[in-house]
Amino acid sequence: MPDTFTLLIDPLPYDAVVDDQALQATFREVDAAEPALRVGELSTQRGDGIFETLAVVDGHAQELRPHLARLQNSARICDLPAPHLGQWEAAAARAAAALPDTGEQALKLVLSRGVEHGPAPTAWLHAFPAADQTRARTEGLRVVTLDRGFDLGTPDRAPWLLLGAKTLSYAVNMAAIREAHRRGADDALFVTSDGYVMEGPTSSVILRHGDVFSTPAPSGAILRGTTQVSLFEHLAEIGETTEVRDIPVSELETADAAWLVSSIRMAAPVRGIDGRELPVDPRTAAFNAYLLSPRD
Amino acid sequence: MPDTFTLLIDPLPYDAVVDDQALQATFREVDAAEPALRVGELSTQRGDGIFETLAVVDGHAQELRPHLARLQNSARICDLPAPHLGQWEAAAARAAAALPDTGEQALKLVLSRGVEHGPAPTAWLHAFPAADQTRARTEGLRVVTLDRGFDLGTPDRAPWLLLGAKTLSYAVNMAAIREAHRRGADDALFVTSDGYVMEGPTSSVILRHGDVFSTPAPSGAILRGTTQVSLFEHLAEIGETTEVRDIPVSELETADAAWLVSSIRMAAPVRGIDGRELPVDPRTAAFNAYLLSPRD
Repeated sequence: MPDTFTLLIDPLPYDAVVDDQALQATFREVDAAEPALRVGELSTQRGDGIFETLAVVDGHAQELRPHLARLQNSARICDLPAPHLGQWEAAAARAAAALPDTGEQALKLVLSRGVEHGPAPTAWLHAFPAADQTRARTEGLRVVTLDRGFDLGTPDRAPWLLLGAKTLSYAVNMAAIREAHRRGADDALFVTSDGYVMEGPTSSVILRHGDVFSTPAPSGAILRGTTQVSLFEHLAEIGETTEVRDIPVSELETADAAWLVSSIRMAAPVRGIDGRELPVDPRTAAFNAYLLSPRD
Repeated sequence: MPDTFTLLIDPLPYDAVVDDQALQATFREVDAAEPALRVGELSTQRGDGIFETLAVVDGHAQELRPHLARLQNSARICDLPAPHLGQWEAAAARAAAALPDTGEQALKLVLSRGVEHGPAPTAWLHAFPAADQTRARTEGLRVVTLDRGFDLGTPDRAPWLLLGAKTLSYAVNMAAIREAHRRGADDALFVTSDGYVMEGPTSSVILRHGDVFSTPAPSGAILRGTTQVSLFEHLAEIGETTEVRDIPVSELETADAAWLVSSIRMAAPVRGIDGRELPVDPRTAAFNAYLLSPRD
């Protein structure tokens, strides 16, 4: 069974009523090793589009609907046509069926503004084997805090900064990870210029102080993390206390444990923040067992 | 003669010594209407790459070397391999030779971090007819100021925000233009959160107070505008006074004239800023005559 799968998608209007045959006719499977996109693509010219990355674990697309809900929200913020949920669900189902039914894959959904001066947006889906995450999940990560450059109120004042959308313009996120590596760390943790904890470049952050788990309140500045939300639901179910609120940077110094959580890496314990050592919380293995179980 | 031209480029190390035959072998001409890029391209997945756009006027690539110098600078900021200048010059020469020798084309140079987990960056060049700019150059533009979200000192504090690089992560720039349209204006003018004039999403800004022309000092936050630099050199040659300095937003209210200048639109007079009307400076036609003349 091939471990990559790529599907070009001709996006339907969000409210189109189509039967399965017509739906399948909007898909075209291509070889990821072959060229599939034109140089006029606005995704590539200007990072002008949105995306989601989700895990396919043992053939199951994890939390497809929450990811599609976030794709819808990103489309709204970016003035892109609302995605047709049934079309994306059918595309993800094709990917899941085509992929191996054991192991972990990353499934990337992309909605681009299309080819410059083109009549319509373009879309595709691309699945490939996830890198082995064992070390991050067990030994953990050392992180450094990096200033994201704006204060907590900026996104409300300036929605054109698209801070709540998961756009393809991720060069800064990648640069932050390179800066973390330069400083001898594994990953970055963004903080606002007025001293609040935000998120990692590709992850949400969760802190534990005593028995209380907390994460920064999703705002215009902080992406609502699907993995964080799922894990907090699980924590609530097993009787743990969770809090979603603004978190000053000073609380990083008093945290008893911390995690960066994301769709592919799942729960990675934070071993150090700006040089301060933290223990790996023994609950981490159970968190990952939950996150790797089939979730919708 | 075709009015589009696309060349895929296999990037050479910046210091490679190659003869012309070997250089030409790194190019592959493709049809812009056909797929040329893979879905794993980091340019399209994460806007992770850099670009330049320059004009080809009557077959002459305008200010190729200043654009390539800026590409080099962007590469340095983004930890991308330094571009091989001779290779890019040869590629631009191929484009100029293939394009009509009258009229205006846009020539886009792209250097991407490459395909994910791929061994090397990818690059291409793409030329296409420039839209008719007559109206912007003669009747001018109405602009609105938009907060760019950070203060003037941020780029020095946080170089990982890549604020001095021309990256492919341009979704915010495009969103700012859409916001300007929503407000009934033609374009945006970014200002810092601490009240300094910056630049347009795809242009530099020039103000005139009396006989003095000014533009915001290029800093980590403001891209050094090739067209602005060229026009200021021209103004100095013809005896005008120019200033490059930090410009508080309050000076927008006292400007006698203003322009947004960029490589394709050239000098577009600003007719209004946040609703305040400005006259079109009669020097504008001469500015555009200069900018449309062959420049290196």
